[in-house]
Amino acid sequence: MQAVVLTENGAQPTVATIPVPKPGPGEVLVKMYASPINPSDLAFLAGGYGVKKPYPVVPGFEGSGTVVAAGKGILPKIWLGKKIACAASPKLNGCWAEYMVTTASSCVPLSKKISTEQGSMMFVNPMTALAFFDVYKNTPNPSNKLRGIINTAAASALGRMVIRIGKQKGIPVISIVRRNEQVDMLKPEGAEYILNSSDPDFELKLKELSQQLNATILFDAVGGKMPQQLLSAAPKGSKLFIYGRLSAEPCEILPSDLIFTGNQIQGFWLTNWLHENGMIKTLLTIREVQSLIKHELATHIHKQFSIGQITEAIEIYKNKMSKGKVLLRF
Amino acid sequence: MQAVVLTENGAQPTVATIPVPKPGPGEVLVKMYASPINPSDLAFLAGGYGVKKPYPVVPGFEGSGTVVAAGKGILPKIWLGKKIACAASPKLNGCWAEYMVTTASSCVPLSKKISTEQGSMMFVNPMTALAFFDVYKNTPNPSNKLRGIINTAAASALGRMVIRIGKQKGIPVISIVRRNEQVDMLKPEGAEYILNSSDPDFELKLKELSQQLNATILFDAVGGKMPQQLLSAAPKGSKLFIYGRLSAEPCEILPSDLIFTGNQIQGFWLTNWLHENGMIKTLLTIREVQSLIKHELATHIHKQFSIGQITEAIEIYKNKMSKGKVLLRF
Repeated sequence: MQAVVLTENGAQPTVATIPVPKPGPGEVLVKMYASPINPSDLAFLAGGYGVKKPYPVVPGFEGSGTVVAAGKGILPKIWLGKKIACAASPKLNGCWAEYMVTTASSCVPLSKKISTEQGSMMFVNPMTALAFFDVYKNTPNPSNKLRGIINTAAASALGRMVIRIGKQKGIPVISIVRRNEQVDMLKPEGAEYILNSSDPDFELKLKELSQQLNATILFDAVGGKMPQQLLSAAPKGSKLFIYGRLSAEPCEILPSDLIFTGNQIQGFWLTNWLHENGMIKTLLTIREVQSLIKHELATHIHKQFSIGQITEAIEIYKNKMSKGKVLLRF
Repeated sequence: MQAVVLTENGAQPTVATIPVPKPGPGEVLVKMYASPINPSDLAFLAGGYGVKKPYPVVPGFEGSGTVVAAGKGILPKIWLGKKIACAASPKLNGCWAEYMVTTASSCVPLSKKISTEQGSMMFVNPMTALAFFDVYKNTPNPSNKLRGIINTAAASALGRMVIRIGKQKGIPVISIVRRNEQVDMLKPEGAEYILNSSDPDFELKLKELSQQLNATILFDAVGGKMPQQLLSAAPKGSKLFIYGRLSAEPCEILPSDLIFTGNQIQGFWLTNWLHENGMIKTLLTIREVQSLIKHELATHIHKQFSIGQITEAIEIYKNKMSKGKVLLRF
């Protein structure tokens, strides 16, 4: 079968012919239909992701397809023949191949109402967006006042979902983007509060708006100077969750924004969140994803590519992330 | 009376003649005996401290003296004529003057066993050191294993107290200093684990030692690259408390040291800690300070200066902090 293969840390992924894998106990073989490129895939390709797998390796964390073979166990047998959304196993090859073996518990059957394309993007961004609101809900709020969320890199697929779910739940979301065209892109999503970090008065506007909306829950995917700008602007006692590093720069934090403020910083990683919250919350979250995927958690698809066009697909995604998602089709 | 006066943000403090202040209700007038220069005083002089007071202002956060006049209220009357240790009121002029007015509740009577010099340094460092161990005790420890503390700028007065209290409580402390002579200075304190951050294999040694001692509670007063070095080395799930910024550089944090690790960062400020923990814990902490001030919480005094030598006193303290404390005498 054809597969995208990464032979070493930071190398260019290439297309190679490798054997079709066999499912072991509790595993299924999925004939892949589609798989997106996510920022976490780019981090994995560059060698800077939290999950390391031995080389050579097939990248790709999520996708959709049909279960065509089942290993031992009840769940694999139940999924056999079904159209499913799936996540790659943390220990096996990933989704960017014609066939993938993964654990049956990493698969979710797709109803006929969900397209196979949307189904291929059901895990990473939709579950992260819902997890953000779960983190929000579970962060103590001693003042008991309505509080807002700040999210950066907000023109991303995830950023748009955060805007739509915020609207649905009545929680104000301040979306930070880096260009004026992205401001225009987010208005049709119903975004009420959009700031452009390239504006000369960005920090002043961010301070005013975050104080006004009591925005004390902050999510950042940019790094560099952004975390410091967020913490300096937000009300005292804010909590900053770092979930990405799009700028590739280390975060710069002023000690005084921590020492005198009661502010806190930690990371957010979906894998850890799922691990900490256990199976029942995972299942409930998947159910919520399925009920919201037609609207709040829908992803705009920018372009689709065949597996042989992997280099071009990655280039287009890297350079035009906010145009929409890039899908690989098998 | 003579007082050290700061006329604007970042200016050189000068000596001026100003009127002796009068105590209001609940306040006392202290004839000052001694007051130390602490890193928080230097931050206040530079305009980067959490408490801002209107200019012109007398600096100095703590000291000792005798209560020579009392405002209305029971406590001021009780302290009248007594030798006390005192902290400056957050709203009034500070300790670097012949006389200071402060709230009676910011004073602690000094027993005859405590010298007036040691009494002048009873608040800032001793209470911070005890607060660190309180933070340690109150940080969840799911593994239930003995865990270590990492502290930087460890040749400071505070760093030495952390070493001695760690020893008394049986908690391993990794002390990080910046020069070899400081390593030698800390050995007589009973420090078991001292690392020099200028050593070429510092990061490797820090990693080995912090994993071996399960050192997941980290205190940093340096800033710059130090917080990132601590977080990269320490076991996953570590908690970093930033309490100073001796390097004057912003902290540089790698997003991956937060996203995939469960690590957390927050500030530590004694003023906030006292506020959050309330009066009873403050009183208990003061009592513990008094019982430990002869040994664990004693401060080595490097030099003493009269008020007219303020410029020289600050220079000597800035350039030779780890030689010991510099006291002003009135």
